[in-house]
Amino acid sequence: MPSHSKIEEGDYVLIIIDPKRRWVIRIDKDKRFNSDRGVLDLKNLIGVEYGSKISLSTGIEAEVHKPLLIDFIERGFSRATQVIYPKDAGYMLYMSGISSGSKVLEAGVGSGFLTAAIANIIKPNGRVYAYEIRKEFISLALRNLKILNLDKFVEIKQRDIREGIDERNLDAAFVDIPNPWEALNNLYQALKPSAPILFFFPTINQVEKLYDTIKEHGGFSDLRCVEILLREYRVAKGMTRPSTRMIGHTGYIVFARKRKTS
Amino acid sequence: MPSHSKIEEGDYVLIIIDPKRRWVIRIDKDKRFNSDRGVLDLKNLIGVEYGSKISLSTGIEAEVHKPLLIDFIERGFSRATQVIYPKDAGYMLYMSGISSGSKVLEAGVGSGFLTAAIANIIKPNGRVYAYEIRKEFISLALRNLKILNLDKFVEIKQRDIREGIDERNLDAAFVDIPNPWEALNNLYQALKPSAPILFFFPTINQVEKLYDTIKEHGGFSDLRCVEILLREYRVAKGMTRPSTRMIGHTGYIVFARKRKTS
Amino acid sequence: MPSHSKIEEGDYVLIIIDPKRRWVIRIDKDKRFNSDRGVLDLKNLIGVEYGSKISLSTGIEAEVHKPLLIDFIERGFSRATQVIYPKDAGYMLYMSGISSGSKVLEAGVGSGFLTAAIANIIKPNGRVYAYEIRKEFISLALRNLKILNLDKFVEIKQRDIREGIDERNLDAAFVDIPNPWEALNNLYQALKPSAPILFFFPTINQVEKLYDTIKEHGGFSDLRCVEILLREYRVAKGMTRPSTRMIGHTGYIVFARKRKTS
Amino acid sequence: MPSHSKIEEGDYVLIIIDPKRRWVIRIDKDKRFNSDRGVLDLKNLIGVEYGSKISLSTGIEAEVHKPLLIDFIERGFSRATQVIYPKDAGYMLYMSGISSGSKVLEAGVGSGFLTAAIANIIKPNGRVYAYEIRKEFISLALRNLKILNLDKFVEIKQRDIREGIDERNLDAAFVDIPNPWEALNNLYQALKPSAPILFFFPTINQVEKLYDTIKEHGGFSDLRCVEILLREYRVAKGMTRPSTRMIGHTGYIVFARKRKTS
Repeated sequence: MPSHSKIEEGDYVLIIIDPKRRWVIRIDKDKRFNSDRGVLDLKNLIGVEYGSKISLSTGIEAEVHKPLLIDFIERGFSRATQVIYPKDAGYMLYMSGISSGSKVLEAGVGSGFLTAAIANIIKPNGRVYAYEIRKEFISLALRNLKILNLDKFVEIKQRDIREGIDERNLDAAFVDIPNPWEALNNLYQALKPSAPILFFFPTINQVEKLYDTIKEHGGFSDLRCVEILLREYRVAKGMTRPSTRMIGHTGYIVFARKRKTS
Repeated sequence: MPSHSKIEEGDYVLIIIDPKRRWVIRIDKDKRFNSDRGVLDLKNLIGVEYGSKISLSTGIEAEVHKPLLIDFIERGFSRATQVIYPKDAGYMLYMSGISSGSKVLEAGVGSGFLTAAIANIIKPNGRVYAYEIRKEFISLALRNLKILNLDKFVEIKQRDIREGIDERNLDAAFVDIPNPWEALNNLYQALKPSAPILFFFPTINQVEKLYDTIKEHGGFSDLRCVEILLREYRVAKGMTRPSTRMIGHTGYIVFARKRKTS
Repeated sequence: MPSHSKIEEGDYVLIIIDPKRRWVIRIDKDKRFNSDRGVLDLKNLIGVEYGSKISLSTGIEAEVHKPLLIDFIERGFSRATQVIYPKDAGYMLYMSGISSGSKVLEAGVGSGFLTAAIANIIKPNGRVYAYEIRKEFISLALRNLKILNLDKFVEIKQRDIREGIDERNLDAAFVDIPNPWEALNNLYQALKPSAPILFFFPTINQVEKLYDTIKEHGGFSDLRCVEILLREYRVAKGMTRPSTRMIGHTGYIVFARKRKTS
Repeated sequence: MPSHSKIEEGDYVLIIIDPKRRWVIRIDKDKRFNSDRGVLDLKNLIGVEYGSKISLSTGIEAEVHKPLLIDFIERGFSRATQVIYPKDAGYMLYMSGISSGSKVLEAGVGSGFLTAAIANIIKPNGRVYAYEIRKEFISLALRNLKILNLDKFVEIKQRDIREGIDERNLDAAFVDIPNPWEALNNLYQALKPSAPILFFFPTINQVEKLYDTIKEHGGFSDLRCVEILLREYRVAKGMTRPSTRMIGHTGYIVFARKRKTS
């Protein structure tokens, strides 16, 4: 992300009209921003300080911000798959303990949202080894990663981890594929001693199946399964309450760590 | 954390007997590990590979692992205050978008658990500017940070952010003090344009008070308030169910970002 | 509800095509049931046994059932207001301890959904004294109650409980109005010693306000505040998971009981 | 429950010292109430009005109330089994639509808590047919029911519903046994057309098993599975928040209704 505080040609910016109306767009002096609340020639944003109020053609006010990772994830990236939500991704990253320099496996890249979040943490000297079997998702994920210049920290392979993982001595693994129990040997060989794996599963049956298989396998221990719920609040003086609708389920997270097989 | 895969004198190790019986301890060849399940001379662990099974004096088996950040947080650090839970810390870190190299404010250090998690992400070139008014917590937090060699990325000051923040142009702020609405001007001056603040509050009244004050202040926008719930599962073939007891509340998280005042 | 097991002219029936496509309708031999999945002349249902499969004009199958209270509440009643959900109503009724013969106050009738549920429990010898200030809701509630022949157990008054409650020695009160703290004296006088009140509030601020006022008032004690969340599950062999979307908030329930003022 | 408003010999009363210190006891003029906050000769309560403040030997104040059903369930009944919580029982009763006069099956009586709640609703002309295989639970449940004079509305049988149900044309069934899928035929024959069954299961695997079996059986339709979570709040002016600890799981509720097999 640019560290200057004025908007320049080629920058990505976050435009916020209201909580629902928000866009991440790239500044192109020949283009125009369109919304149901008004339009704006993007050349007018060049030289404007980040965080400024701006007026749309209709006189309606908006704000223009330097986008955070979360803004790209919410509004800047393209998506073609179910993605891992911030509530889940944040917890998984935290539990993994990864940091700058970590070498990390990701299995099941999808739209690359979690890939970006991992890359953002392990950069500049770490590396994400990302396995994805569907070609179209690889292109999509790379496109998303490039927006943030994170692609250079990620190596995406069109390969099924059930058929092999090339790396060794990795610090952590993030696994979001339907049947990871078929890849336990490969995961085992790819990871460092004591390294954590974070699995993500939509159904409880997958969790049960993993637990069952992992016990037989013997190479992982210390399993934990959690589910994370996020409630949004509508806060207003004297009228504060949770939002009426919420996401009731995304998936289950399973943590395990590699142990030495005897 | 050491990158060798055999235990050495001075290493911290995680000993796991069962899900509840787990300890992070430092290897000292002259000391002994004691538990209600058996004892162990620590010198016997030197040279053992991480992830190995070990036998206690009673013949009961345990595992010895290289601890992750989460293990220090759960079992390795001392605590004298309410701490921010992983479910909340993970989400806050994710929303902040910080990464290696970020300059970050933390107000309200407490036992230093979140400080360690921030430092683990911003290292080696970033820096945490941590403000804490109670001397005893500063010592405690430093002690915890030193265990992980994270103290060198953190500058802790015995100071109230309501009386001033020395830094400028910071990338993000994490605020866990009872009355941050009295520090809005100082937070405003310390942050970069568009930089995020993540607040943590035990009560909903504090959230309302912050919203109310922040609107008047004018220097922050795009507020969101969420609450995160974590359910643990007991997974066993044919007998899977959430744990009977759970933490029903830790706190509310408020996100805001700096905007330009007109 | 009719106790015969074959459908007769004038009966209300529940037609279920699939979990979302369900209707409660009245059998009128001259009318036709219309849906996007097919139509049906209602005269063809007369004489059919409850619980039977029926075929629509398109050949698509449906089931026809004798409706339960919950079916009227979900699909048979008209609504013009926010209604109290089954998860909340069930808990409130349970906590109140009311049963056949109870004399019950209801303040804030709205569309009469809770009124019907109370009447269904206190009938045939009990009575609901229902206060509602908006005329149009009284008509609506009466229309809903008549469908189930429950109107004869309910006396609806167009009156504000803040201005007075006519009854004395009531067994319980259900209160769903915005500002019940202004009616504490009237509630006190209307209830039996030790009788419970169940309040329902959309916002937490109202809960706080009630607690605050009730302490000063002195006539009620043993307050409890709870919130109830309901998760629906999609159950399918090997693919079981909670529904993706859920209702994140309806309201807070406060329980109190009358005590003797000194 | 007595309808007089002064305490008499033989009455059950609820004594509340604080939210945690509460007892349901029977007035016996020769007995004494003992607590860690003080004692009281019960003869001193005779003639006292319900809802009154009383002083213990220590000068500490308490309140004495006429107990509600919920008080017997929380503090008056003996328990020897896992019981169904109010949040679940309230919802199940509501969904069943039962009312005064209903004939109801209960399978799996346990300590009789749900039995009491059902009896309280169907009295005086309805009847609960309660099946329980363990003799000691039958005695316990009867003892609990007698406290409230509800035993006369309940017929408890020492019998396994998998071996037969004597009744026919019942209005609803409540089933809390580990393997109800083995009793589907018997449940089918016992119920009226369109009658609802409410199942309660601790594990999700049981839910899946029931769904699977019930589809093959063909005699029930319109299945729904839900889980209910209850959060308690600590309400205090300016310091309102959910309780730190909560019950994370009790069980899953499945609703089904009888349909005609072809």
